[in-house]
Amino acid sequence: MNANQLFNNIKKKKSFLCVGLDTDPEKIPHHLLEYEHPVFEFNKKIIDATVPYAIAYKPNLAFYESLAIEGWLSLQLTVHYIRTCYPDVFIIADAKRSDIGNTSKMYAKAFFQEINFDAITVAPYMGKDSVEPFLMFKDKWAILLALTSNEGAEDFQYIMEDASGLFLFENVLKISRDWGTADNMMYVVGATQADHFEAIRKIVPDHFLLVPGIGAQGGSLEEVAEFGLNHQCGLIVNSSRDIIYADQSEEFAKASEDKAKNIQMIMMNILKKKGLI
Amino acid sequence: MNANQLFNNIKKKKSFLCVGLDTDPEKIPHHLLEYEHPVFEFNKKIIDATVPYAIAYKPNLAFYESLAIEGWLSLQLTVHYIRTCYPDVFIIADAKRSDIGNTSKMYAKAFFQEINFDAITVAPYMGKDSVEPFLMFKDKWAILLALTSNEGAEDFQYIMEDASGLFLFENVLKISRDWGTADNMMYVVGATQADHFEAIRKIVPDHFLLVPGIGAQGGSLEEVAEFGLNHQCGLIVNSSRDIIYADQSEEFAKASEDKAKNIQMIMMNILKKKGLI
Repeated sequence: MNANQLFNNIKKKKSFLCVGLDTDPEKIPHHLLEYEHPVFEFNKKIIDATVPYAIAYKPNLAFYESLAIEGWLSLQLTVHYIRTCYPDVFIIADAKRSDIGNTSKMYAKAFFQEINFDAITVAPYMGKDSVEPFLMFKDKWAILLALTSNEGAEDFQYIMEDASGLFLFENVLKISRDWGTADNMMYVVGATQADHFEAIRKIVPDHFLLVPGIGAQGGSLEEVAEFGLNHQCGLIVNSSRDIIYADQSEEFAKASEDKAKNIQMIMMNILKKKGLI
Repeated sequence: MNANQLFNNIKKKKSFLCVGLDTDPEKIPHHLLEYEHPVFEFNKKIIDATVPYAIAYKPNLAFYESLAIEGWLSLQLTVHYIRTCYPDVFIIADAKRSDIGNTSKMYAKAFFQEINFDAITVAPYMGKDSVEPFLMFKDKWAILLALTSNEGAEDFQYIMEDASGLFLFENVLKISRDWGTADNMMYVVGATQADHFEAIRKIVPDHFLLVPGIGAQGGSLEEVAEFGLNHQCGLIVNSSRDIIYADQSEEFAKASEDKAKNIQMIMMNILKKKGLI
C-alpha cells in the first residue's frame, strides 16, 4: 500500500484510527480460553467489530512471542484473517526491530514475506544500514522510532547535539528522512509529546506519523491533530488497551466497537474541520 | 548465571568465545535439509563440536523468525538442547528488543520464561523503563547496545552532546550503568570500534562487554583484548559466520571445531598474558 491508497482509505472511513492488538490471554474474556486459539479468536472478534472505524491494526509482537509457538501461530492467523476479509486494512508489525544489514534483511523477510505485514516499526540506534533492508520491498514500510510516548524517552531522545543544536529525535528525523521516501517511511511520535509536533512537522512535513499514547498512556487526540495533520492526513493514531479491553463480558466486542466508533467520530470532525474530507 | 560463575567458566575453558548461531537454511550443508528440523540439526552439530572452546552461544532471532513457526521451534529445541547437555553454557538471545515497560515485560517473559535464555540484547533508544523489565529476573541479563559494529553506528552513536561533551554511546553507558549492576547488565561494543575500548572501560570498568564483529566484519581480537579486558575478563567475544559456515561438506562440524579451537588458543594466550589464568 502506498501513501495515496492509505489516504484514500482514511477518507473512505473518515478515520485515521489504528487498533493495537496487544492481546494478552490473561486479559481477554475468560470464555474465549475454551477455543483452540484464544488469542486469534479474540482478535477476530475485535477486528470484526472495529473495522468500520479503523484503517489499521497493529499487533504488538511481544505479546505473541511471550506465547512462543502458539503466539506465532495466532499472529499468522490474525494477519491472514485481516488480509482475506478486509484487504484494504493496513497491518503494522509493532516489533521495533533493527540490526546489522545482514540481520535486518532476515527480519524484513520474516515480517514482509513469511507474514504479509504492510509495515514494521524499527529502532534507529544502529543507523542507515540497519533500516535500509526494510525499504527494499515494494509497497512496504519501515516506521522509525523518533520520539516515543514513554517516560524513558527523556533519557536519550532529548540529548542535544553540539554542532546542530538539535535534539537526538530531531537528528533521527533529519538524518533518516532521505533514506527512503514518504511512500515507504513513517515515524513513531508519541501522543504524549504533543508540544513537539510542530517542530517535527517542519522536519518531515510529508511523512505519515504513527502516534501511540492516546488512551491508557494519557495523550490527547485533539492536540496531536492540531499540529500533526498534513495535506494527506499524515497521521495514524493508535489505541490499544482502551479499545480492546473495554469490557470483559461475552459482549466485549460491542464495547470495543463503541470505543472505536467514539474515536472515529472525533476523527471525522477533525478531518472535516481541516477540509480533508 | 552471575558474573562470578561466568568468569569461572571462562577460566575453566580458557576461552571467552561466544558462537553466534545465525543459522540460515540456505547456507547450511545440503544433506541436513533431509532432517525434520534442519536448523536445529545443524545447531546441535555445531554446538557439540565447538562447546569445548566456547562459553556462550548466541542465536540471532532474525534468522529463526524468518522461518516463522519452524524457526521458533528450532530455537526452542536449540536452547533446550544446550540447557540439557551443557548446563554451564551462557545463552544469549540476540534479539535487540525494547519497548514501553508494559511491552518489554512481555519480551522478558518470552525470552527468560517461555525460552530459558540467560540474556537478551536490548536497544537503548527508549530509555530506562524500556530496559528495566529485563532486569527483574534473578541471574538473567540485559545486554544494552552501546557502540555497534556496523557502518550505521556513525549515524547517531557518535552524535556529541552539547552539555557533557560525550558521544551518544558514551551517554548510553554513563546514564544506564546505574539501572542495574555488573551482575545483570552488559554492553554490546563492536570489535570494529577498538579505538574506543579504552574510553569505554573508563565509564564501565566492571561490566562485561559482548563484542561482535571479529571475523566476517573485520574486527581484531588482539586489539579488543588489549583495551577491553578487566579483572574478571569482562569480555565475551562473538564469532558467527566465520565459525559456523567454515565448511559446506558433511564434515562441516569438524571445520567449525577447528575454527573455534584456533580462536580459543589465541584467547588462552591473551588470558595468560594478562595473568587471568
